[in-house]
Amino acid sequence: MPAEDAVVIGVDFGTLSGRALVVRVSDGAELGTAVHEYEHGVMDSQLTAHQGEKLPPDWALQVPADYVSVLKHAVPEALHNAGVSPSRVIGIGTDFTACTMVPTKADGTPLNELDEYAGRPHAYVKLWKHHAAQGQADRINELAHSRSEPWIGRYGGFISSEWEFAKGLQLLEEDPELYEAMDHWVEAADWIIWQLTGEYVRNACTAGYKGIYQDGRYPSEDFLSALNPDFSGFVRDKLDHRIGQLGSKAGTLTAQAAEWTGLPEGIAVAVGNVDAHVTAPAADAVEPGQMVAIMGTSTCHVMNGETLAEVPGMCGVVDGGITAGAYGYEAGQSGVGDIFAWYVDNQVPGDYAAEAAERGISLHELLTEKAAAQEVGAHGLIALDWHSGNRSVLVDHELSGLILGQTLATRPEDGYRALLESTAFGTRTIIEAFNSSGVPVRELVVAGGLLKNRFLMQTYADVTGLEISTITSSQGPALGSAIHAAVAAGAYEDVHTAGSVMGGRTRAAYVPDPQRTEAYTALFEEYRKLHDYFGRGENDVMRRLRAIRRRALSQPGSDQIEQKAVEE
Amino acid sequence: MPAEDAVVIGVDFGTLSGRALVVRVSDGAELGTAVHEYEHGVMDSQLTAHQGEKLPPDWALQVPADYVSVLKHAVPEALHNAGVSPSRVIGIGTDFTACTMVPTKADGTPLNELDEYAGRPHAYVKLWKHHAAQGQADRINELAHSRSEPWIGRYGGFISSEWEFAKGLQLLEEDPELYEAMDHWVEAADWIIWQLTGEYVRNACTAGYKGIYQDGRYPSEDFLSALNPDFSGFVRDKLDHRIGQLGSKAGTLTAQAAEWTGLPEGIAVAVGNVDAHVTAPAADAVEPGQMVAIMGTSTCHVMNGETLAEVPGMCGVVDGGITAGAYGYEAGQSGVGDIFAWYVDNQVPGDYAAEAAERGISLHELLTEKAAAQEVGAHGLIALDWHSGNRSVLVDHELSGLILGQTLATRPEDGYRALLESTAFGTRTIIEAFNSSGVPVRELVVAGGLLKNRFLMQTYADVTGLEISTITSSQGPALGSAIHAAVAAGAYEDVHTAGSVMGGRTRAAYVPDPQRTEAYTALFEEYRKLHDYFGRGENDVMRRLRAIRRRALSQPGSDQIEQKAVEE
Repeated sequence: MPAEDAVVIGVDFGTLSGRALVVRVSDGAELGTAVHEYEHGVMDSQLTAHQGEKLPPDWALQVPADYVSVLKHAVPEALHNAGVSPSRVIGIGTDFTACTMVPTKADGTPLNELDEYAGRPHAYVKLWKHHAAQGQADRINELAHSRSEPWIGRYGGFISSEWEFAKGLQLLEEDPELYEAMDHWVEAADWIIWQLTGEYVRNACTAGYKGIYQDGRYPSEDFLSALNPDFSGFVRDKLDHRIGQLGSKAGTLTAQAAEWTGLPEGIAVAVGNVDAHVTAPAADAVEPGQMVAIMGTSTCHVMNGETLAEVPGMCGVVDGGITAGAYGYEAGQSGVGDIFAWYVDNQVPGDYAAEAAERGISLHELLTEKAAAQEVGAHGLIALDWHSGNRSVLVDHELSGLILGQTLATRPEDGYRALLESTAFGTRTIIEAFNSSGVPVRELVVAGGLLKNRFLMQTYADVTGLEISTITSSQGPALGSAIHAAVAAGAYEDVHTAGSVMGGRTRAAYVPDPQRTEAYTALFEEYRKLHDYFGRGENDVMRRLRAIRRRALSQPGSDQIEQKAVEE
Repeated sequence: MPAEDAVVIGVDFGTLSGRALVVRVSDGAELGTAVHEYEHGVMDSQLTAHQGEKLPPDWALQVPADYVSVLKHAVPEALHNAGVSPSRVIGIGTDFTACTMVPTKADGTPLNELDEYAGRPHAYVKLWKHHAAQGQADRINELAHSRSEPWIGRYGGFISSEWEFAKGLQLLEEDPELYEAMDHWVEAADWIIWQLTGEYVRNACTAGYKGIYQDGRYPSEDFLSALNPDFSGFVRDKLDHRIGQLGSKAGTLTAQAAEWTGLPEGIAVAVGNVDAHVTAPAADAVEPGQMVAIMGTSTCHVMNGETLAEVPGMCGVVDGGITAGAYGYEAGQSGVGDIFAWYVDNQVPGDYAAEAAERGISLHELLTEKAAAQEVGAHGLIALDWHSGNRSVLVDHELSGLILGQTLATRPEDGYRALLESTAFGTRTIIEAFNSSGVPVRELVVAGGLLKNRFLMQTYADVTGLEISTITSSQGPALGSAIHAAVAAGAYEDVHTAGSVMGGRTRAAYVPDPQRTEAYTALFEEYRKLHDYFGRGENDVMRRLRAIRRRALSQPGSDQIEQKAVEE
């Protein structure tokens, strides 16, 4: 048993920064935290880490060294802020965005760190929201269905362009030389553990959800070869490796990592994990039927189930994918908070910004206040929340946003509210898919940054008709990682037990209003109809517009006549 | 023959103001002009002319006395600005927005000028864009089709909620006492002539296009009775009156009107006219196949044809509706410039406004410049230009706007360009309806305020594939009214002859680029598909959202829980 004042460290690697959290093992008390931003952020238009080369649309890259910087800065700073001596730390756990992929040499060196490859975009980390492998994903899906591959049903019928196979196939087909030079195609969740322990262990979560690892097998060489003959060795040569179960120990902290972090060499390092999945125990919500929605720029839904079922459009079901011993289900919405941010940045006039500034509130707060004063349906709008594509239940990143119903009387807050509602309709769509597949959702547990918008939370309760519980911790993923660290260090028997002590949630923090639920149901029927029309092939206009856009962007310079017409 | 230095006055009554123009009869030279704004503008939320009573959605009212103020102020001021003695004036002509309706007593006194009715919204002018009679229009259309009324085909199969019958039926059904008190239901175009001449003459243009007067007959008493028994006398009691042909003399200027205007008593006053239709001779474009598009807040399309045809979704075809002796066709787009204005006011962030201000240009100019630098299709968007409903070819004011294809990379100028393009697609839809009905469009002649946006004009040329001619005068309607005044005064034989001398246009001012026309055709096919899906009954979501909105707005006060959720 660990000492009574033992602590663990959880490190949460997000999209723009990493956060370290110091947590007391005995009760989950959060003693100190620190954030470190990635120097290069997300490279989605230029390769700023090299010479600013222009990137094609839908790309999103990162720099692995930025992750190591978090270990070097945020961990010691969090300890310092907590006033805790490093000697009290008995373990460290991490979680990461996923599917975020690092191409490495055999020793884990990322290809971008080799001078010869530093100018090649494919040598960098492909962040989860790199959406340029849709063509590859389409082929994977088509082939899997035509061959009736047994694993495709485990992913709701769709392999996402965000995942290991689509991104890997894009790398092969667009930069075959680099593909040849790559020894491992590594989840960043596992790459960071490799840096901490010196050992490469694939975590069961991403191997299952993102790596198509089911029932002890990956897709067959025959399948890969049919996809592209040069891809036949992808699993054998680039992907396959030892799998570690969640909550178990990946290894111990190396001297090098101890030097980076200021932590004692040899302490337990938990198997890598994913930000969303690790949040479930932090909310003490790992029982079947407790759907945890982690709401931020995007939303991820995770839920344990007792049985294995195929939910249409889910991201996946993985044995032990959330906690060992249960079927972990995952679904997601690829754009939520980032859609609201896009609207505020691009579609709200200056007089609103001035009013917000004068009142000392954010534009989000001002718009929310104005929107909240309306009756359900008063704005007359319906939106589709697909500005960043659709993960569940359509799994199509070629989809795009829509707003319908504008009149000359439509105000900025109307569009804002319609977008808030559209994401709630997206969540209801997911819940209904689970309910009708024999994996009923009993409780919606919300974590993540959007918790702070109380009107949004009430809207989710009203739209779904479910009571909403809210996570107690404001650092869900980092706390979840700390819980995994405590289990890896042997302080608790398993993640369930550790979560019930160290995690927690407020039950029924928001209760649906029956009248509003009824009013929203009428709007949801309109959403569903548009969702199916544009999302299920009846009118593929969004896909065609993306193709037209790509062609138009690839032929610059011929717009001078138009320009001239304006200047004359 | 008039003296060599004879002049005429044209007065154009627009949506927000009236303009007087002094024109030399011999060559159409514009010698001076003046504008006078309506004191009460458009009352669309409150009855500001009385005690600020709240108006329901979709209403738009005006005050008749505001029109008389234009005669009193703008006419003398224009003469003064021209440096022309009133004694040189041989005639006056006017044009008006339509269908704009004034309820009057037998002597022409508007009901709102009687104290007992001043607080009743139905006593005021129903402006063309009063859209609250859609339910009545729906019933008129349904009944007309079920009875196979011969006149319905002359209006593309649809009577608009904007027109005399729908607005009149709304008045009857919502304020029967006022309907009873009303002796005449008068087009503002004719009411102003009544003020000038003391005589009530219905002009052939609005009587045909807006009053369902075809082949010398109105809809039958039997039809009206089936609509509503109390409406059976509508034509006989409220509407029917002497018809005057366009270009003919309605009467002579009364002593009272001479005092208002400073013009000589007894000069010729032309039969009333409509702003759009009167613009055709001002552009010297009254030959068959010359479609004149008057582009401002909305767009009106007028074109003479040699034969009588039924064009689906046209506003109407009227014998002598544009010039006596030809079949005048009319179509329209109910929202164009006002959609762009709505976007600039509600959906463009402050940093754009700051950039425009710094450079000393308007936000419209800035957005146009940024939009014009793009390739066709590069923004990835498609919009439907129905923010103010759809006049042609769907004739449905319950429709609303749509924008589709947004991603997190969508910028404010992208949405602006998509809206510009959507209105060009709307025009192409109208042109194709004419072409396929045996009334081919050979030349697109543009007049109106939007002429100043050269990129927009080039886009219309590219989208329609037609050469665009532009009217020479910047005061098309007022010049057209002056032309009619000259004919009424006997200076020219007919409007064609007067237009060829006094009017004019620049031919092929914009020439389509074949490559862009091809690229736009792909986008137009997407527009057409969405147009038909949302506009032709496959998905009536826009109508349902309007109904939901109306219900929501009628039950205020029950939103306090939501509000509380924000404030807590």
